[in-house]
Amino acid sequence: MQKYFVNPNNFYNDYSEVIIDKDDSFHIVKVMRMRVGDEVLVSDNQDSYLTKIKVLDEKGVILEVIEKQENSSELPLKVSIAQGLVRKDKMEEVLSKITALGANCYIPVNMERSNIKIKEEKKDRQLKIIKEASEQSMRNKLMELSSIISFKDLLKLKTNYDVCLFASTKASLDNPNLKQVLKNKDIKSILVVVGPEGGISPKEEELMEKANFLPITLGPRILRTELAPIYIMSAISYETELG
Amino acid sequence: MQKYFVNPNNFYNDYSEVIIDKDDSFHIVKVMRMRVGDEVLVSDNQDSYLTKIKVLDEKGVILEVIEKQENSSELPLKVSIAQGLVRKDKMEEVLSKITALGANCYIPVNMERSNIKIKEEKKDRQLKIIKEASEQSMRNKLMELSSIISFKDLLKLKTNYDVCLFASTKASLDNPNLKQVLKNKDIKSILVVVGPEGGISPKEEELMEKANFLPITLGPRILRTELAPIYIMSAISYETELG
Repeated sequence: MQKYFVNPNNFYNDYSEVIIDKDDSFHIVKVMRMRVGDEVLVSDNQDSYLTKIKVLDEKGVILEVIEKQENSSELPLKVSIAQGLVRKDKMEEVLSKITALGANCYIPVNMERSNIKIKEEKKDRQLKIIKEASEQSMRNKLMELSSIISFKDLLKLKTNYDVCLFASTKASLDNPNLKQVLKNKDIKSILVVVGPEGGISPKEEELMEKANFLPITLGPRILRTELAPIYIMSAISYETELG
Repeated sequence: MQKYFVNPNNFYNDYSEVIIDKDDSFHIVKVMRMRVGDEVLVSDNQDSYLTKIKVLDEKGVILEVIEKQENSSELPLKVSIAQGLVRKDKMEEVLSKITALGANCYIPVNMERSNIKIKEEKKDRQLKIIKEASEQSMRNKLMELSSIISFKDLLKLKTNYDVCLFASTKASLDNPNLKQVLKNKDIKSILVVVGPEGGISPKEEELMEKANFLPITLGPRILRTELAPIYIMSAISYETELG
């Protein structure tokens, strides 16, 4: 079934009806070619609702809420991925994939070896990618996208999370940090830092260790920076969501 | 350090020297701009060797073997990913990423909902992608690439593996198949089947269950067909390789 994220303000009549914005109305009418009575899932970025199409004309689409969905498709813990700035196409790939894998937030970081010095970009395109990946993967919530931050500000984020990790090629395969963190049910929020294409510099590793960020390994092979966040999110889902 | 896969026949003098083929010589000389004495890793698709450049001229590059590498970067079990035929660009993305994650073999399968009816393609481009991903990720072995097979032949592969699994959107989150298989140290070879873009058909699921393929879930969100194999390989690495 098709899913759409809708601003909570679009719900009315005590959450019994919801009006769909222009772009998604176009998608429902022209792309999906749906009709009155067809079922659609919507999320207000908190909960998901099963609805059916009540009105469908040139001006827009109105849905009638049938019921709130009970099962959540959100990870049992909040995971933020911080990544050294990478090329736009790689960042977009990571955004799409870690959204589908349930990440809570993506934080681009200006790191020593980020070979790209971009100023704050217009986020419209990235937010659209996140919305589409959230809809396609049937999430309840949209992933958040942070502004670009400095490495110094990254270190300060320690206070916002139960635990902070960083992917280190120097960490031994016997390093138990990732499994220990994921098996600890008391940990509800994790930040994982991944380097840019050139990796995390030795100085940055040292500063993170001093700030109580724990090094983790992602196995014996070298993973490209766009693959590392996907590995991490898959491992977290496997450990915390599968029976 | 840069790594290159070399045909075992290129080794000579009792494996003390190795001659590099034209393409890789070009890469060493023109792209990497290396010099005599620089160190290079090579693999004969079995073991990896630390070497240094002995001769480097227009005709080619000769390396002197310093020592065999003791640590393997191969997964402790052999994993084949079988996937319903997908678009060429998606297949290439999957080939590159699951190679870096340690997969042993990729098997494209003609399935009911494969919306692409291609005949056997020239494999040169795919094999090049696999070689590059194997080198970049520092593997000891190249991933194997199967020819396109029929769904009927896929079912017959059961005899080649200790266990065969398929990603099913109908499998419950409590389904323990994947974790049980990965925690069982006696299992040395796994085949995992992933559907094409339209998914595995109900009839195909039924036939696989009859052939003793076990359904597994990949979490509560819907993963695109190009993301599912990456999730599976990441979960396998996490479970079997990390301390």
